[in-house]
Amino acid sequence: MFNVKVKSDVIKGIIDVTSPLVNEAKFNITPKGISLKAVDPAHVAMVELTIKNTAFEEYKSTDMELGIDLDKLSGIMRLANSGEMVSLEYDEKSNRLIVKIGNLVRRMGLIDTAGMPDSKVPNLDLPAKAVITASELSKGVRASEAVSDHLALSVDKDAFELFAEGDTDTVNLKLPKDLLVELNASGKFKSLFSIDYFTNMIKPVKAEEPITISLGNDNPIRVDFDFAGKKGHVTYLLAPRIESE
Amino acid sequence: MFNVKVKSDVIKGIIDVTSPLVNEAKFNITPKGISLKAVDPAHVAMVELTIKNTAFEEYKSTDMELGIDLDKLSGIMRLANSGEMVSLEYDEKSNRLIVKIGNLVRRMGLIDTAGMPDSKVPNLDLPAKAVITASELSKGVRASEAVSDHLALSVDKDAFELFAEGDTDTVNLKLPKDLLVELNASGKFKSLFSIDYFTNMIKPVKAEEPITISLGNDNPIRVDFDFAGKKGHVTYLLAPRIESE
Amino acid sequence: MFNVKVKSDVIKGIIDVTSPLVNEAKFNITPKGISLKAVDPAHVAMVELTIKNTAFEEYKSTDMELGIDLDKLSGIMRLANSGEMVSLEYDEKSNRLIVKIGNLVRRMGLIDTAGMPDSKVPNLDLPAKAVITASELSKGVRASEAVSDHLALSVDKDAFELFAEGDTDTVNLKLPKDLLVELNASGKFKSLFSIDYFTNMIKPVKAEEPITISLGNDNPIRVDFDFAGKKGHVTYLLAPRIESE
Repeated sequence: MFNVKVKSDVIKGIIDVTSPLVNEAKFNITPKGISLKAVDPAHVAMVELTIKNTAFEEYKSTDMELGIDLDKLSGIMRLANSGEMVSLEYDEKSNRLIVKIGNLVRRMGLIDTAGMPDSKVPNLDLPAKAVITASELSKGVRASEAVSDHLALSVDKDAFELFAEGDTDTVNLKLPKDLLVELNASGKFKSLFSIDYFTNMIKPVKAEEPITISLGNDNPIRVDFDFAGKKGHVTYLLAPRIESE
Repeated sequence: MFNVKVKSDVIKGIIDVTSPLVNEAKFNITPKGISLKAVDPAHVAMVELTIKNTAFEEYKSTDMELGIDLDKLSGIMRLANSGEMVSLEYDEKSNRLIVKIGNLVRRMGLIDTAGMPDSKVPNLDLPAKAVITASELSKGVRASEAVSDHLALSVDKDAFELFAEGDTDTVNLKLPKDLLVELNASGKFKSLFSIDYFTNMIKPVKAEEPITISLGNDNPIRVDFDFAGKKGHVTYLLAPRIESE
Repeated sequence: MFNVKVKSDVIKGIIDVTSPLVNEAKFNITPKGISLKAVDPAHVAMVELTIKNTAFEEYKSTDMELGIDLDKLSGIMRLANSGEMVSLEYDEKSNRLIVKIGNLVRRMGLIDTAGMPDSKVPNLDLPAKAVITASELSKGVRASEAVSDHLALSVDKDAFELFAEGDTDTVNLKLPKDLLVELNASGKFKSLFSIDYFTNMIKPVKAEEPITISLGNDNPIRVDFDFAGKKGHVTYLLAPRIESE
């Protein structure tokens, strides 16, 4: 059984976070909430999302899985206004998800989850951490797109730094400790990442909200942020690009 | 003689209603107002539009016809702001329509109406009628576009219903009597229609305004609504698609 | 040395005025301000722009030249909000322009100005002058685009007139003296111009601001307007199209 009522924005938030990496996703559902883990086809990035049942107006569910075409669900959510309540119910007999928006009833076919493996989230020991406002980070990343396809992120005990270098042009965003929400690094740590992937990871976060960056040396980056009024949480992992010297 | 002054929005309204079906239209003009009848090139849909002289700020005309390129007139109307007064005058000597917007004078070539037949509106006996708010109908039609290229409309004594079915997905919008402006049906009546055509027919109606749907069994649909502050009226007819079983 | 602080809108204004004609420009910089002269590749139009040091919040400079890729600078300015302060500094050692927006530092490669000649502005004796509100002019030009690729501008002692003629359609915008900011013509003067070029020349001017048109017979037109709170000034010259009769 899966039968919930929720503001359309919460579902839109889940889609925004997941759809940059995969077109289809397996949602793991329990009485306490929903989670998913997904890896992009190139195996460069991974997303782990959890959302508590308290993010929903009404929530009734047993343990189950739902395989969902995210493009299709996104199209359905566009029929709902911002703030509008939608209901989602799994119909076992027809194996459909029944989405109700006002008087509209939309029955949606599901994807067989048998072929969808549970991605395992690697246990990473990332020694440095910086918490940054989304708008600051996003300006640095947008500037970097014009000069390169990859950027370097580094953290030391005094500052977080973003750096991108093209043939003639460079971008540098240095945020000293007092401009950060939090900074925690014992030494200097630096890794290179694809700008495309990183852009998509921070795009869902609203301008004034904090993003937590965890970093090592030539190691993956971990990006963490909350959504749905802090009742949902997202963790992205992104593999580093190794600097050729 | 044809010499009128009118808010640009009224002319824009006429174009919005007519241009989804035809690129060129013959306007029949009398001292009492303007009307047109037009059939789309595929002979699937028909529009009949009438607008009273009282929708105009000033209106002077004898009986005449004007053949108008709707794209061209639409481009001219984009030069006028919403609510801005425009004047339209037929210049017999040059066979041009003179459009004045502020200090701008735009002389527009006309189309020879000799080759444009008067479409005859068939007399249909459509036994069921439902009056529906545009926004409700429009949400159902938008949802249907994602699952099929045609939809079924039905009316019985209790409700109006819209239904579309794809390979795995369905859309259902059921509006019981108390959610309708009006409902009038002695039995159950149902017909299938092309979503593309139907979308265009209801698009010109503002969200909160009523649309009258007249329906039979596997018969054309008639869609009626007012525009220009109820001084204009539009009737669309749309041929049914016959269900292959 | 070149080291200034300025609202992003002033730099955006310079780009808007210059980029329709050239992709790269040589800025001539003195302690008193900045100027540039540029001719489009087809040698049909020319722009001369000057902006005083008082348009800047801070301004320190010696005599120098900067060769700038306008597309690249435009992309950088899009990172700044309207009204946001940006700083620009020439770094002699690396031959880069260092643009700072908030905490972001963007080092931009420059273009070698050796190959960029100083355009000479021809001395024209244009006997007629009309000062017109941008919005009026712009409406006439937009209307003309639909009927032709060139338009005629004329001035006599009573009015300014714009005229465009297609196969069946015409546009006429006549502004009598009392609708103009200023009118000064001893006789009648008229020249033909390319609509494409003329559109781009008046586009940067805000709706309610005045544009000065100087005109002769089958002679270039001169278009003058201020920007950056009247601390900057733009002069365009546009070659006439000769009427074939």
